[in-house]
Amino acid sequence: MDVRAVTADDRDQWQGLWDGYQRFYGHPDRPQDFFDTAFARLTSGEANDFQGFVADDGGRLIGLTHYVFHPNLWRPGGVCYLQDLFTLPEARGKGIGRALIEAVSTAAKARGAQSLYWLTAEDNYAGRMLYDRLATRTPFIKYQRDF
Amino acid sequence: MDVRAVTADDRDQWQGLWDGYQRFYGHPDRPQDFFDTAFARLTSGEANDFQGFVADDGGRLIGLTHYVFHPNLWRPGGVCYLQDLFTLPEARGKGIGRALIEAVSTAAKARGAQSLYWLTAEDNYAGRMLYDRLATRTPFIKYQRDF
Amino acid sequence: MDVRAVTADDRDQWQGLWDGYQRFYGHPDRPQDFFDTAFARLTSGEANDFQGFVADDGGRLIGLTHYVFHPNLWRPGGVCYLQDLFTLPEARGKGIGRALIEAVSTAAKARGAQSLYWLTAEDNYAGRMLYDRLATRTPFIKYQRDF
Amino acid sequence: MDVRAVTADDRDQWQGLWDGYQRFYGHPDRPQDFFDTAFARLTSGEANDFQGFVADDGGRLIGLTHYVFHPNLWRPGGVCYLQDLFTLPEARGKGIGRALIEAVSTAAKARGAQSLYWLTAEDNYAGRMLYDRLATRTPFIKYQRDF
Repeated sequence: MDVRAVTADDRDQWQGLWDGYQRFYGHPDRPQDFFDTAFARLTSGEANDFQGFVADDGGRLIGLTHYVFHPNLWRPGGVCYLQDLFTLPEARGKGIGRALIEAVSTAAKARGAQSLYWLTAEDNYAGRMLYDRLATRTPFIKYQRDF
Repeated sequence: MDVRAVTADDRDQWQGLWDGYQRFYGHPDRPQDFFDTAFARLTSGEANDFQGFVADDGGRLIGLTHYVFHPNLWRPGGVCYLQDLFTLPEARGKGIGRALIEAVSTAAKARGAQSLYWLTAEDNYAGRMLYDRLATRTPFIKYQRDF
Repeated sequence: MDVRAVTADDRDQWQGLWDGYQRFYGHPDRPQDFFDTAFARLTSGEANDFQGFVADDGGRLIGLTHYVFHPNLWRPGGVCYLQDLFTLPEARGKGIGRALIEAVSTAAKARGAQSLYWLTAEDNYAGRMLYDRLATRTPFIKYQRDF
Repeated sequence: MDVRAVTADDRDQWQGLWDGYQRFYGHPDRPQDFFDTAFARLTSGEANDFQGFVADDGGRLIGLTHYVFHPNLWRPGGVCYLQDLFTLPEARGKGIGRALIEAVSTAAKARGAQSLYWLTAEDNYAGRMLYDRLATRTPFIKYQRDF
């Protein structure tokens, strides 16, 4: 299993993975445009927009992660936000999630970011079993207003 | 009381406010460079770096907020992150925090951001009394790895 | 202000206080029988049923607390559960809640209980400001099935 | 697998199970007296002290639960507190925890208790995966003062 940056050739398999993730979060009906726009951004080469890694198992994609760098006023080097992390249900328990997080962490350090963070639902028990081993759970909770 | 964008003329008063905020979060010894760098960013005019508002009470600054826009793969218009919010202790209970949040919200909508969010400690009771009235508390908690 | 055990003479004032507490928790329509039964238990002298303290301000009752002892398999001396704590809104901020908790704590120690505990809603911010100074917030959350 | 009340004949196997539970919660060195006292209480026949169920797999005990009834001022029928729940690591994933909880629930209803509750650590992910299916997670957190 190889973790590598997503490329234009991954288009179809990537959509299958991200659709699985969207369904997990209660969005089974994303329009095609939703995927087109995201994939174009991931493969644009724009350093300040989203980047992605995939877990490639001999040509079959079994996991993905998406991340972005953004400014932070307390940390001049900026921070890295890991927004998405998904592994195919049949490929879980093999360290793929961990490998994807570590790849993002390595990329973040290489860019000079001062921290890597992600948000997860308080009751994402399976995720938190992993996250507790890889990072610090902070006391911070998120408030949001949508427009 | 007027909420307006921070300007170069606010330099000294702004530092007093942000130092108060840093002390609240357990950082009483920030070097001068910490403040110089942040103020230069806030007043640089760079649309993708941090912006700030101050609460100006007849020339006396009594509150501040700092925010930044960043990409979000699920929301093409991006999102607005409100990182800092502070009101002088003697000026609390008068709606200044609310006015500062509303100013950021208005700016975020004007820019086309699709949501405004902030993070707060689970036990920031005074803050949450306000936030519960202004925004939705999500189930999300933050995991972090520092470099 | 005097904290003392509730007595039969407190009947009417006690009901006004407990009704305030019930309304705070979303129960504005408790039948009279609800109050009759509880008061009879509080004043029965039965050591294994609920006990109560009131805060008496020159004959006017301004606060109450109800507590009970129950077995605990890990602690042979048993534990004390403080179920209710209420202070009239106009009498808050004067240390009455603290005095009531301390009275229960003293009674619990005198009985040989090995700990005093209570439960509170995660977002009872005003309560938690006090509780954080008086006790340890544990990591325990409550699951419940009603019959 | 049979869920039944603990009896005097279960003495040795019961101690092995409860010791496993104590170790899980960070208490590897409980004195013999700790076990003697608890077992005597569980098998005393005293209706107001702790009761226990064991999961009996053809004579081999693979799980246990301990519970007690106590008064509640809001619920005249009282409530049932399930304090301990343990399944041998090698016997997990087979519905034993669920069967033990259901046995306590049935006993609680038979006694006329108006609710069954238990407390668990916020980060007991494996437990909560089960509890979310069997009961309601309340917003209540526990504060405690030890004597």
